[in-house]
Amino acid sequence: MNKQRPFGQEPVSLATVAAQAGVSVATVSRIVNGETRRASAETVERVQKLVAALGYRPNRVGRTLRRRESCIVAMLSPNLDNPAMAAIAASVEAALRSAGYVMILCDTHDRADLQDEYLHVMRSQVVQGYIVVNPVRSEALSASIARGDPIVFVGRRNPDGGGAFVGIDNRRAGADAADHLWAREIRDLAVIHPTQGSSATRDRVHGFITRLRELGLSDGEVRQAEAPGLSHLEVGYAAAQRLVDGHPWPQGLFCPSDLMAYGAYRLAFETGVRIPEDCRIVGVDDNKLNAWIAPWLTSVHIPYTDFGTEVVDQLQALWDGEQPSEQLLPHKLIVR
Amino acid sequence: MNKQRPFGQEPVSLATVAAQAGVSVATVSRIVNGETRRASAETVERVQKLVAALGYRPNRVGRTLRRRESCIVAMLSPNLDNPAMAAIAASVEAALRSAGYVMILCDTHDRADLQDEYLHVMRSQVVQGYIVVNPVRSEALSASIARGDPIVFVGRRNPDGGGAFVGIDNRRAGADAADHLWAREIRDLAVIHPTQGSSATRDRVHGFITRLRELGLSDGEVRQAEAPGLSHLEVGYAAAQRLVDGHPWPQGLFCPSDLMAYGAYRLAFETGVRIPEDCRIVGVDDNKLNAWIAPWLTSVHIPYTDFGTEVVDQLQALWDGEQPSEQLLPHKLIVR
Repeated sequence: MNKQRPFGQEPVSLATVAAQAGVSVATVSRIVNGETRRASAETVERVQKLVAALGYRPNRVGRTLRRRESCIVAMLSPNLDNPAMAAIAASVEAALRSAGYVMILCDTHDRADLQDEYLHVMRSQVVQGYIVVNPVRSEALSASIARGDPIVFVGRRNPDGGGAFVGIDNRRAGADAADHLWAREIRDLAVIHPTQGSSATRDRVHGFITRLRELGLSDGEVRQAEAPGLSHLEVGYAAAQRLVDGHPWPQGLFCPSDLMAYGAYRLAFETGVRIPEDCRIVGVDDNKLNAWIAPWLTSVHIPYTDFGTEVVDQLQALWDGEQPSEQLLPHKLIVR
Repeated sequence: MNKQRPFGQEPVSLATVAAQAGVSVATVSRIVNGETRRASAETVERVQKLVAALGYRPNRVGRTLRRRESCIVAMLSPNLDNPAMAAIAASVEAALRSAGYVMILCDTHDRADLQDEYLHVMRSQVVQGYIVVNPVRSEALSASIARGDPIVFVGRRNPDGGGAFVGIDNRRAGADAADHLWAREIRDLAVIHPTQGSSATRDRVHGFITRLRELGLSDGEVRQAEAPGLSHLEVGYAAAQRLVDGHPWPQGLFCPSDLMAYGAYRLAFETGVRIPEDCRIVGVDDNKLNAWIAPWLTSVHIPYTDFGTEVVDQLQALWDGEQPSEQLLPHKLIVR
């Protein structure tokens, strides 16, 4: 921390001002930095009075950084042709733009070597911050974290632990899927997942099974199947094939992503199984296209369009020298 | 052009070597620049002999550029959450990476002001080239073209005319959709389109109507409806609403993009019209997800996964000082 402060005296933090003003840290940060448009006149006045009264001093490093010429923030994201990733990118791009930054986007393909390559290139471009969607553990990422680069992790947490994070409560999302199917009195239940699942995927599956256990099903009563690969479409298809190989389709199926649900749907379509009449599928993501062409899919809606604002707020807090924090956004099951 | 040449003597171009060697300009360019892995030993030898015999001299500007430190190419693309745009971005990113470049991606939202903003930022980053997907006319773009920056246009042509281009024959794509529906003996035909359509969209619609005229339908016999907006999903829904307002659904409907077809599908689903039984829809793009969750949609497949290689070949030709050219890739109607 680079704050100059008298020995023995704790500095007044943005968080202290925010708590006393009854607003978010990001709001205080914006007002202190002269961005007063998004708050009401009353809020601006209340915060400014508290800043004076408490003796809050803005972090100089943050301000200096923000005034440097570069206004670029780099987003590293896997698999741009995954609709969920595209939705996050679009949302963050819009939020950065309205905060005066431009976003450049790099496709890591979920690979550590490419993530490192792009981190090196971006570092040479003097970007102001990093947004890493679904990070994987890699050397350059650990080095960047160790240097204290401003990084916000999205979707998956920092593989080294800690750090600023925007995402959802994935266990709760899986539990909500279980509750939904249970409430419809479906007891013949199954779940499919990728063999090499991310922490997010594992948490969703874990939440689903744990909730069903609480509701009275033994683990053996919940059928499970997995398949290898990185494409969730193909994983969904192959895992569903294994699930129903020599067995009937379950009456309820949880897929930890909509793309896996699309894969299972294709197998059902090809084999004459009617969705949702014969098998109710619950996915996660609530991709924008579901409302248009997948009316058979109930899905846990993740508010990707709100991710942008949260990510930018977290970045600005990091620039202001605040401690990184986690922001879990509310998800919601959309029944179709 | 920066080629040094004796007065009165035409320089030997890559194209001349390529024609005599019976290979592509890109292949000659790669071999001349020492990238011999992708060609056979015979081809490399034949090209090298011709280079010596004809006295071809590589363009120094291209070589110098290529040796500069930056290995960044900027892609400007509208609406990253359009699956077609995402498919182009993924393909170009992979091709650039295997050629030793990294791609950074900027979302222009189909807006001239944002296109200009990103062009300014990218210029300050000393990128080696630009790929502009679906360009719109803008000041900074015209300035960049006038400076001779290496730019490859994708999807839509250079709004100022000329330049390197990768895309498909959009009129032919529309005509193919007409032929497909005609061959199924469907004569009750309609087309929907955005009020502010791009040249690509207009060409597809024009090709559809022109072909039906050739087949014997008068223009009045082909029902048309349009709707304003930038989201093709919403345009498709609203235009289909206008089309069927007080009229029955047509037996065949051409939508100049798959997203518009999804919009029309949603209206059909909501109103109990069965697709494809009651109305056959033909789209354009053949989005990857169609095979998984839109088995009712016949679509003109655009080989987006091949776009990357073509775009990089064109960029390398521009770096070598070659004249820009147009590359139309073969499309194919996929019947589902």
